[in-house]
Order: sequence, then C-alpha cells, then structure tokens
Amino acid sequence: MTPDKTPRTEEEVLDAIERRRRRPVRKLLDERITLSHGAGGKATHTLVEALFLAELRNPVLEALTDSAVFSATENGRGPQLAFSTDSSVVNPLFFPGGNIGELAVNGTVNDLAMMGARPLHLSAGFILEEGFPIADLQRVVASMAVAAQTAGVTVVTGDTKVVERGKADGLYINTAGIGVLERDFSLSPGAIRSGDRVLVSGTIGDHGMAVMIARGDLELEVDLKSDTASVAGLSATLLDACGDGVRCLRDPTRGGLATVLAELALSAELSIAIDEVALPVTPAVNGACEILGLDALYVANEGKLVAVVAPEAADAALAALRAHPLGGEAAIVADVRDEPPGLVILETAFGGSRVVDMLAGDPLPRIC
Amino acid sequence: MTPDKTPRTEEEVLDAIERRRRRPVRKLLDERITLSHGAGGKATHTLVEALFLAELRNPVLEALTDSAVFSATENGRGPQLAFSTDSSVVNPLFFPGGNIGELAVNGTVNDLAMMGARPLHLSAGFILEEGFPIADLQRVVASMAVAAQTAGVTVVTGDTKVVERGKADGLYINTAGIGVLERDFSLSPGAIRSGDRVLVSGTIGDHGMAVMIARGDLELEVDLKSDTASVAGLSATLLDACGDGVRCLRDPTRGGLATVLAELALSAELSIAIDEVALPVTPAVNGACEILGLDALYVANEGKLVAVVAPEAADAALAALRAHPLGGEAAIVADVRDEPPGLVILETAFGGSRVVDMLAGDPLPRIC
Repeated sequence: MTPDKTPRTEEEVLDAIERRRRRPVRKLLDERITLSHGAGGKATHTLVEALFLAELRNPVLEALTDSAVFSATENGRGPQLAFSTDSSVVNPLFFPGGNIGELAVNGTVNDLAMMGARPLHLSAGFILEEGFPIADLQRVVASMAVAAQTAGVTVVTGDTKVVERGKADGLYINTAGIGVLERDFSLSPGAIRSGDRVLVSGTIGDHGMAVMIARGDLELEVDLKSDTASVAGLSATLLDACGDGVRCLRDPTRGGLATVLAELALSAELSIAIDEVALPVTPAVNGACEILGLDALYVANEGKLVAVVAPEAADAALAALRAHPLGGEAAIVADVRDEPPGLVILETAFGGSRVVDMLAGDPLPRIC
Repeated sequence: MTPDKTPRTEEEVLDAIERRRRRPVRKLLDERITLSHGAGGKATHTLVEALFLAELRNPVLEALTDSAVFSATENGRGPQLAFSTDSSVVNPLFFPGGNIGELAVNGTVNDLAMMGARPLHLSAGFILEEGFPIADLQRVVASMAVAAQTAGVTVVTGDTKVVERGKADGLYINTAGIGVLERDFSLSPGAIRSGDRVLVSGTIGDHGMAVMIARGDLELEVDLKSDTASVAGLSATLLDACGDGVRCLRDPTRGGLATVLAELALSAELSIAIDEVALPVTPAVNGACEILGLDALYVANEGKLVAVVAPEAADAALAALRAHPLGGEAAIVADVRDEPPGLVILETAFGGSRVVDMLAGDPLPRIC
C-alpha cells in the first residue's frame, strides 16, 4: 500500500525531490485500464491529466478542484455555483455504517462543501443490473432520501438505465450536485502558506477498512463501521468560526489522507510535515491495517475533512471541529513548511522521517 | 413492440379511455429489475413513480420534466437554472454516426434545451471496466470534446471509477448538465391547448435502428446512421422565431415519438392525433423496421425534438426548423384535440385509427 522504494534517509529524501522536480508532465503509458486508474492515486492523476484534461481542456476543469466553480451569468455578477459529480461502485452495496445510496449522496455533497459551497440539489443516475432485487433498490433509495435530508439537499432529477445480467454488479449510482458559494473568500491550495496547520476532523481509515472487512474475503472479524456522512454542516461550522483563516478544505476519500496531502503539497509547492503521533486512528482500524499490511494514511474516509488553516486560526479551528457532533476526534496532524517543496514528510513516532507519496496501485478496489 | 391488445375500433378506444381513467396510481409489482425498467416506457414510469418519486419526493423532482428547474438563490431572484442527468450504456460503444461519448454529451445537452435553457456546463462520470483499451477511451473523450464544443458547453468536472473485468461492459458514462433559463416564458405540458400542432424536427427512428444494426446480431446490412446531435441550437432557433407560441419541447429518445406523445397527452389531459402519412421516416429505417417487426414510432432518436406549438405559430415554427441545418425534414405530424383526453390516436394511411400507448417491454435494450 505504501509506495515502492519509500525514501527514508535525508539523502534519499533530497534525491526524491530532485527526481520529482525533473519529472516531465506525466504520460499515459498503459494500453489498458487497470484498477489503479480508479484508485484516486497516481494512475488516476495520470489518466486525468494526460487524457481527460488534454481532450476536454478549459480553465474551470483545469483547476482540478473537488468541484467546479463558475458564475451562472455571463457578466459574472450572478451567484457563484459549485458543481461536482461522483459515481459510486462500492462492493458490497451494503456495509456496516451505510450503503451505496448514502455514499452516493454524501460523496457529492462533501465535494461541494470542500469548496465552501452550500450544497443545494443533486441529480441521481442509476445503472441497474437486470435481476437486481427491487427491495434492495428501495432500501438504497430510502437511505439516499435520509442522507439528502440530513445534508439539506434535494434530489431534483434522475435517470435510470438497465444493463443485462453480468454487465454490472447489481447497482452503480452517479450523483452530481450543485451548490452555491455564499462567502466572500474562496478556498484554494494556492492560499496555503508556510507555517499553516493541517487538521483532520476525526479518525482516519474507517470507511475503507469497514468495506474491506464487509467484503468478507479477508476472513477477519473486526467491529468496524464506515464513517459515511455529510460534512457540509461540519465545514460550515468551521468556516463560520475561522472565516478566511481557513485556506483550503479537502475530503480524504480514495487514496486517503496521504494522497490528499501529497496533492496539496504539490499544488502549493510547499512541504507538509505529518506528525505520526497526532494522527487519530481507532484501535480497530490500526489492528486491521497491521494484519493486512496496509497504512491507514492511504485508506479512504467518507465523512472526514482535512482543513489547512492559518497558524493563528488553528486553535479556533480545532475547537470548532471538536464542538461539532462529527468532529469530536479532530486533531492538528501536520504543519506546512517551505522545504522540501512539493513533498509530504511523515515524522514517525520513533523520530525518523519518510516521504509520503500519493497512493500507487489499488490495494482496496471499489471502496466507494 | 406495439403494446399488446392495441384497441382499434371506436368502442375499444372508448373502453381504453375508461380503463385508463379508472387506473389507480401505478404499483411496482416486480420483484426484480428487468430490461424494461430501463426502456423509458411503462415499466420505467412505474419504477420512477412508485419507487424513486415515492422515496425522494420534492416539488422540483415531481415535475418529472426533462430537466429540473430552480432558482440558484433562496429569494428566487437569481437566475433560473436547469439541471439534468443522463447515463449512457449504449452497446456497441461505437456505431455509425457516433459513439457513446457524443451520445453522453448530446443527451444531457438536449434535456436542458428542452426546458428552453441555454446549456452551460457538464459533469462527466466514467465507469470503466478493467482491461478497457485506453485508445478507445481516448476516441470517446475526443468525441465528447467535439460534441461539447458544437453544443457550446464545457465539461467542468469529472470522476473516474474502475470496476473489475466482467462487472461492466467496457465503459459507461454519466453526464449531468447545468443550463440557464433566459427567456421570459416557460415550456410545460400544462401549456398545451386543444388545437395546438405537434412538429417533429426530422426523420424518426434513425438512432435506435442504427445501433441495432451496428450490434450485428440481426444479420441485416442496411446503411443507417445515428442522428446523435445537440438540438440546443435548433431549439433556440425555434424559440427565437415563435416565442411563447411554443408550448412545450421534448426530445423523443428512449420509447420514441410514441412514448413522448403519450406522456404529453397524459400530462395535458388532452388527446394527440398523429397523422401517420405526415411522419418523416427514411426508407432505410422503414425497411429495417418492417423486416424486424418494429414500429419507428417507438424507436429512439438522439438528435430530434418534438415541439407543441400554438396553431397560429405552426407555420413559422415549421419554417424556422426547416431553415436550420438539423431541421430540413421537419414536419407537422399531429394535432391536439379535446377528446379522447389522455390518449394518443394514430390516424393511419388507410383511414383507420388506433390508440398509441407508451412503449411496453424493451425490444431494443441499451440503445442509449
């Protein structure tokens, strides 16, 4: 799960920086799609940059933010809207803590919230496999209704397609969402400055491990629950408390906290130093990760947010998160430094340090 | 392909009306999803009403229009937006006249245009099957770029998921789209009045038959091309020419012209009488339909629009459509009458008449 040949000595770290700096624009060398292309890590980034962005290039898409942001009117004076999409292909459809329906609603709601938008409306596109039990569909859609109500959004338009038996895996759901930006500041990795602090709103790795265990092929019995939830209320609470002291928000889904921080460090051309000791991880996730040889830093979350905040806002941010029902385990887990730019460094419990790269490969396919 | 036990005599027609009037809210009796649930006809309607609408009920969704329409601001003074979604699961991915990429872009663009909106931005969600050739993905995305440019929209946000080999059929694409309503009147089946005329912008059945033939399992060799196109320009031309003389627009995709007219007749509680002789159908589609025992009225179109216009606007509407590159074969094909309410009647070339119901079953699965 951790990248191959993780550099560990100072010399190796410096060498890794040099190599990254010399790295050309990523090229798509694969001839066929692999599971890694959907894992949200390096291969996904390469596919997005070398294919989707190359073909569909436009300034809004190129921002590669969690949601697109644009004005609804040509003169730019109308409201600023956020727009995002997310397909859910999780396996199994039902898992401890949730199901594909909640995941589909919360995934898009959270993408909107990470831009500081208030989520308004969702679309829902269902791809159903012939033979899928209608009672299961009913359970999923009922969960979507509850999740939408909780997040304060309505599903206003939909589409249903059916494919033959064996051409899907029960049910896939796409949601797209529209939100409105009502604050007088924007959130962006470009706003990150050296000295900023990085917070995570709770324990990491819960969703990915819960789905893995629910799949049953690991023969582990651990009491794990997905954290799937709308973080729209949590992010609004944080923004109300800290205003533009919040530089940037992200939801650490596929690829986990490590991949999100690696993306932020690259975008901001700054370094992010994680304090391993400060990372909130439940004993159950920790134990499951150890048994499976996985690193919770790379495991997906579906109800957490990562906030980069100005140093003077860090205490208020932590207090605001902890006062919210979803943020009781919030923690300051990293800080932003000038050097080495573009890299995330994990400062381990034993006083060592190593570079934390984006997720490579796909150890946990179809967890969302 | 035509519904079972189509009534043909006047007595049978009257009986059909009575039966429909007594018909309770449709109930979902199936225990499992069948291909019919995705065909856009009766089973799809039942699934939407009895499950999706029942669970997700809200006033915008309940309108069951091609796109949802709402204001971006709470005071309702901001711009009116249209929002729609469409998943494409067409098989094969490449067919004469287009591919799944163009279909995905045009499908959502057209849904927005049918509300009178100017399409602005799309999202694109890709579900890829492990092993899918990247060269094919590149072709599809390149086609999406061209289709988006032609339609005047940009793809501003996206998502990529990969599922294991055998859990999809190469590639499924969901698009959602946002448009802005800039006209001072709205389009709605509720605006339809007795005496209105119904126009179709060109020949019917081209897309569905082209995909069927391309699938190769019919062993027919006919030179057919899909009509996939953005009708946003065509609908804008029509609305510019006729203003609120246009009552309502629809794009006759799954379920074909017959299903769209049946929906309109039901919504408007009026009758629509189709003049069979006036229906534009190419000899190739006509021939293929005859051989296969299909009715072009039920075959999907992907680059056509149906317009219901006030009687005094009909000539101007026809002229406006015909002057547009996509509307050369436009025709007035039906008129709206008081009786029998809620039903579509086909007046045949031989002077007979029969009730035209929504599509039942799914004779052409996965054509879009």
